[in-house]
Amino acid sequence: MIPKLGDDERAAALATLPDWALVPGRDAITRSIRFKDFNAAFAFMVRVALKAEKMDHHPEWFNVYNRVDITLSTHDAGGLSERDIALARFIDQVVAGG
Amino acid sequence: MIPKLGDDERAAALATLPDWALVPGRDAITRSIRFKDFNAAFAFMVRVALKAEKMDHHPEWFNVYNRVDITLSTHDAGGLSERDIALARFIDQVVAGG
Repeated sequence: MIPKLGDDERAAALATLPDWALVPGRDAITRSIRFKDFNAAFAFMVRVALKAEKMDHHPEWFNVYNRVDITLSTHDAGGLSERDIALARFIDQVVAGG
Repeated sequence: MIPKLGDDERAAALATLPDWALVPGRDAITRSIRFKDFNAAFAFMVRVALKAEKMDHHPEWFNVYNRVDITLSTHDAGGLSERDIALARFIDQVVAGG
């Protein structure tokens, strides 16, 4: 069982993830990203997929052409966990070109 | 401009795509597919992404773990076109192990 973040931990983590928003009605975070084209969007998705598989922690995501909408939450925790924060940080790093 | 399928063409094409359903309120088709795990689901997505890029015709798709929901429609045609039918056939072939 993966522990859900406590209120203080959640607030502290979210303060460091300004590009992510809480999902109304769910304990989850979301970010929508636009790339140059499908090639760039899917290249991003490949990087996130490899990381997700390695972490054994997978996103919910939607793609249409150059847009990727990602939602992170931890099913086993019933809400946000450290794994979501770690994956969000990785995603931000990839988007920033890292 | 890519032509939208006429009524007869649409009916004939959809009759050969029994795993696809029309999307309520849109001239689009959809299929939800479950794979063994994320590895299998994302491998499928890579094959479809390469094909889509080659066709310059991209899906709208959602993935969570082993599930991929795909919607096909042609923005430039304002609805279903031959390209959607061709991509749907490719997807069916990949799912069938081809």
